[in-house]
Amino acid sequence: MAFGHQREQGRRILLREIERRGPIPRIDLSHNTGISRATVTTVTAELLRDGLIQEIPRDSENAADLKRGRPRVDLKIAGAAHLVAGIKVSDRSVSLMLVDFEGTQLAELEVPFAKGPASSQELTDLIENALAQLTALYSKSIDDLSGVGVGLAGVVDAENGTVYWSPSLRERNINLRDILTHRLGVQTFLDNDANLVAMAEKTFGLGRDHSDFIVVTIESGVGMGIVLNGQIYRGTRGCGAEFGHTKVQLEGALCRCGQRGCLEAYVADYALVREAASVGFLDPDLPIENRVKRLLQAAKEGDPTAKTIVTRAGRMFAIGLANLVNVFDPQLIILAGEQMQFDHLYAQEVIEEMRKSIVQIDKPPPDVLIHRWDNLMWARGAAAYALDFVFDMAIRDVRDDLD
Amino acid sequence: MAFGHQREQGRRILLREIERRGPIPRIDLSHNTGISRATVTTVTAELLRDGLIQEIPRDSENAADLKRGRPRVDLKIAGAAHLVAGIKVSDRSVSLMLVDFEGTQLAELEVPFAKGPASSQELTDLIENALAQLTALYSKSIDDLSGVGVGLAGVVDAENGTVYWSPSLRERNINLRDILTHRLGVQTFLDNDANLVAMAEKTFGLGRDHSDFIVVTIESGVGMGIVLNGQIYRGTRGCGAEFGHTKVQLEGALCRCGQRGCLEAYVADYALVREAASVGFLDPDLPIENRVKRLLQAAKEGDPTAKTIVTRAGRMFAIGLANLVNVFDPQLIILAGEQMQFDHLYAQEVIEEMRKSIVQIDKPPPDVLIHRWDNLMWARGAAAYALDFVFDMAIRDVRDDLD
Repeated sequence: MAFGHQREQGRRILLREIERRGPIPRIDLSHNTGISRATVTTVTAELLRDGLIQEIPRDSENAADLKRGRPRVDLKIAGAAHLVAGIKVSDRSVSLMLVDFEGTQLAELEVPFAKGPASSQELTDLIENALAQLTALYSKSIDDLSGVGVGLAGVVDAENGTVYWSPSLRERNINLRDILTHRLGVQTFLDNDANLVAMAEKTFGLGRDHSDFIVVTIESGVGMGIVLNGQIYRGTRGCGAEFGHTKVQLEGALCRCGQRGCLEAYVADYALVREAASVGFLDPDLPIENRVKRLLQAAKEGDPTAKTIVTRAGRMFAIGLANLVNVFDPQLIILAGEQMQFDHLYAQEVIEEMRKSIVQIDKPPPDVLIHRWDNLMWARGAAAYALDFVFDMAIRDVRDDLD
Repeated sequence: MAFGHQREQGRRILLREIERRGPIPRIDLSHNTGISRATVTTVTAELLRDGLIQEIPRDSENAADLKRGRPRVDLKIAGAAHLVAGIKVSDRSVSLMLVDFEGTQLAELEVPFAKGPASSQELTDLIENALAQLTALYSKSIDDLSGVGVGLAGVVDAENGTVYWSPSLRERNINLRDILTHRLGVQTFLDNDANLVAMAEKTFGLGRDHSDFIVVTIESGVGMGIVLNGQIYRGTRGCGAEFGHTKVQLEGALCRCGQRGCLEAYVADYALVREAASVGFLDPDLPIENRVKRLLQAAKEGDPTAKTIVTRAGRMFAIGLANLVNVFDPQLIILAGEQMQFDHLYAQEVIEEMRKSIVQIDKPPPDVLIHRWDNLMWARGAAAYALDFVFDMAIRDVRDDLD
């Protein structure tokens, strides 16, 4: 047992090193990981045999290499080994991305989502259909998938797969991960969507060089992902890092979660549109995203009612952010999400206001970066999340050599 | 060098084990730490020679021990090896505690503090005088101290010793640790007072069995200490875990930090008394703590004005706590401090309100415990903090044997 575990650990280290640095020669693998050349030879032979990695000719062949008799091949992840899908469920659409075992993006798809929260049955149907379409784009089917990652807004316990509450779901306390795994016949991994964004920022985004940062997402709701010591912080019940439903006003505006005074009830799409509609400001027949765009545009053009609405929302957002800085004192805050594409609530003014509202000390405040990315980037985060699990499964499945 | 480091590490492990489990026989030290019996013999001889530990006769001598020829002595920390003082600076007084190297409490003292914030000069004078009185109670002087721990409210960077802001100090951004170390001629260690309470709760209080919890303190202000993974969480600029100045109301009540809408501006002593005074409710000649007590008493007896004041403060406190639960999702919240002694703001009602204001999931909310402790307990936390550093200094100072 101990031996088998050690062997699996060696495979994991080497496969991860190939993932990070590949294409890479065997000798560098040994050098980088401290694993002996003999073991590197054995383990990479197993990984080659099982199709998880492949040999490719060295790019820059040079005389020194030839003279020293170094092998002329590098090792890289075999993209074709596994197929993984990432899905982001939002209020208005489901975005999907298909990636291979190397993380290369193969296909993407955006499917409109019916208005309002769905039943888990409806959502499962929708995801199954969308996955069939997505895989068909690459001439594959759902059966060819090794894993599916799903991110959605709300309170999600990633470890046990439970959605306690989501604006996308009518039911509460439902194990959507198991339902999807059963229906699709593919292992599914579930997380809060903002956690997936935080992980994506850490892996290939603006958080690459930071160990402690916070990602705040604004789209139809307000999400947050916290990275502490390079890890997603989840809290002890698996439902921490909830920002949209922190209270910024005692007995304040009604929130769609059923409570009052939540940050979301001031800054989310529906909150902005609700206020605008109450003074007859916006055409109720337009789709909500267009109504928000119009409101922001009108405020920019000096309409006093629009300005009043947007200004308060921005200031509420600023004190929410200031509270996060006071409590966490992070290196960096990343504001991400589709809304940030059109200078939502005038981000610079919000950041300025936030800086005034934090405890003033003789050190610069944390950096705030704005990352304008769309739903497909969220789906990419979901795919990266699932790919991580698929890596682990693939390593566990490697057969021992009969040596 | 490597050898010396290893040796110091061995001393550290053994001294800590003796601290935790002593009195303990050498054989158990070896067994518990995995350090060889020969090394245990060498290292404990060094520690005995330098007076950090002492031998005491075994408590329960039994036949089996005698037959196996086990030594009849146990090892324990030598209390007399070092003398350490802990100090808590509050608005109204400075509390001090003297402990020995074993943590045994030798003397305590409470000295009234002049009204309002002091200059660092005044505070240093006060601390020096109070320390002289404290040590005299045990027939010692400041020169006999090996370390002094100081906790005070405000934004304190423990690592570099800077007080960015404190309600007890007139100056901002001042390295009070270095000023005190220089003046006293004793190495001083500084931290935010609520962090010291959190560490005390972790070491010998209600947080002993928890790795992730939050301590909220209420006295003249509102403090917070966060323990994550068994460690104090400090943030990246050393000034995280700030709770009293998180905003609970946009453009709300004026806070003594100069901003508006801070939690403290609703729930701290001065906030309660300010409201009461504005409607002519309280006698301005009484000391503030008595005025607060009277206000709470009047509210309990049904006075409508008093009730209005206390109820809003309690609800503001509840949404502040709910925000912490939403963000951190801790195992436990401990409400500590002197105020909790007289059912401040009716703690049970606050807790009930907090439970209603957190995101509702299908799992019980975190436990909330109330710890009614006084300023001397805070001073004990400060002493424990300094003692920890003194342990490390003592270990570094052990001379190598000439073997």
